[in-house]
Amino acid sequence: MKSVLIIGTGLIGASVGLALREAGFTGSIAGIDASGDELKAAEASGAIDRAARSPEEHRAAIATADVIVLAVPVMAVLQWMQGIAPQLRPGQLVTDAGSTKSEIVGAAERLMPDNFLPGHPMAGKESGGAALAEASLFRGATWIFTPMHEATPVEVEWRGWVEKFGAKLLDMDAARHDEICAWVSHMPQMVSTAMSAMLEDKFGDSPELRAIGGRALREMTRLGSSPFSMWRDIAHTNQENIAETLLTLEQRLQHLRENLKTPELREEFGRANAFRRQL
Amino acid sequence: MKSVLIIGTGLIGASVGLALREAGFTGSIAGIDASGDELKAAEASGAIDRAARSPEEHRAAIATADVIVLAVPVMAVLQWMQGIAPQLRPGQLVTDAGSTKSEIVGAAERLMPDNFLPGHPMAGKESGGAALAEASLFRGATWIFTPMHEATPVEVEWRGWVEKFGAKLLDMDAARHDEICAWVSHMPQMVSTAMSAMLEDKFGDSPELRAIGGRALREMTRLGSSPFSMWRDIAHTNQENIAETLLTLEQRLQHLRENLKTPELREEFGRANAFRRQL
Repeated sequence: MKSVLIIGTGLIGASVGLALREAGFTGSIAGIDASGDELKAAEASGAIDRAARSPEEHRAAIATADVIVLAVPVMAVLQWMQGIAPQLRPGQLVTDAGSTKSEIVGAAERLMPDNFLPGHPMAGKESGGAALAEASLFRGATWIFTPMHEATPVEVEWRGWVEKFGAKLLDMDAARHDEICAWVSHMPQMVSTAMSAMLEDKFGDSPELRAIGGRALREMTRLGSSPFSMWRDIAHTNQENIAETLLTLEQRLQHLRENLKTPELREEFGRANAFRRQL
Repeated sequence: MKSVLIIGTGLIGASVGLALREAGFTGSIAGIDASGDELKAAEASGAIDRAARSPEEHRAAIATADVIVLAVPVMAVLQWMQGIAPQLRPGQLVTDAGSTKSEIVGAAERLMPDNFLPGHPMAGKESGGAALAEASLFRGATWIFTPMHEATPVEVEWRGWVEKFGAKLLDMDAARHDEICAWVSHMPQMVSTAMSAMLEDKFGDSPELRAIGGRALREMTRLGSSPFSMWRDIAHTNQENIAETLLTLEQRLQHLRENLKTPELREEFGRANAFRRQL
């Protein structure tokens, strides 16, 4: 692996570039981003050493890269896969950092079955952007792969770099990935969004709310500030799993609501306590 | 106000004693607690200077106190009010720190209409107990009162001490208090409990969950470790309000679930973002 192309030089993409350098990668790292500012910031920090800006530069960067990292939202991953597929050579690796995996794996099976390694680093920050990128972003984080075949030589090499980032590699089935992520990430997000939106309708900018609301309120609605742009793609590509988690929670809340004065409330608190003891 | 009796010398009660001392109160502070350990810890820290242990000592402490602070869970507040009422003299003040106010106000109207000032300091910690008590616990916190009459001289004096604790006083109607607390405190608690209990049933001690779950999961389920003992009383004495918030959230989640792929999802994220901008 002598040359890497990072498509999407935001928080994750630029952190991959910085982590590669810190791990000792001495080859070239090119970058592509829809935002000229993100591209400049990634260049300035040393996350990439070459920005590809025009369609011609894009084509040249894609043609010469040994590994292409797609670090953009899921829909953009799918679009880039379509654009890249006709140009791929045998032995080139395309990998991604998309939040859902089943649709991406489906597209890869049609477009580039031998060249694609689906990935998902479980890392991030409250805000995005190349300016917040860090070489240490993946240290101690789980980096999931949902492989489509036995690892090719370049895949083995890429996995080695990810290990050098300090990440813990975890292989699983794409469908299982999307199911678990619906429960541990997408459901909590949708609940926080629903709670925040409901409280906005109920209280608007009432000063009473601010005087009385404490840590519980701030914490349970923190994810309410998440941007729609990213979550639209996740909702679109993991709809069935997310819908199942929400329906299950609706039923659970109904059950709790109907048992506020019965011994079943104690049982629910007991189960919740048990969950937290193991987390 | 020369003598104070604190009934319940846990986190809140012992912090009241310490805050009184730091604010310059030089009278006597007696303490009562069902747990001998809590009582000892409160004595050791100087939160109280006299522990009343036997029923005879209890009666004497109640008879001699100018102000009696009930810093116990709501059901215990109601029980203590019944026990104290027959002994009260004109001019004595009973105040409390219970999490819900309507039932307590109802009991006070029957038992001690002229002596009672319902209160609720919006302060606490993740764990309770006298050992964690601090004189500064109420600094910057809102301390709600839901007064039943024009302030009597001893009430005016007690409010003055609470201000010296550094708390921000806020008067409101007891019914309004219970409604708002249902939305900003009780609903988030019940949601976190339901989510935690549901995840316990779904995943048990699966290692995958721990590998993949991040800050969102930990944060949205943190309140799942809350003890039933405290929340049973809140659920019992604010059932209708809590049920209304849960039903509203169930409907909101259903709406979101049915719109994961429609433009309405953008609207919900927009409302949630607006709520968070003002929080």
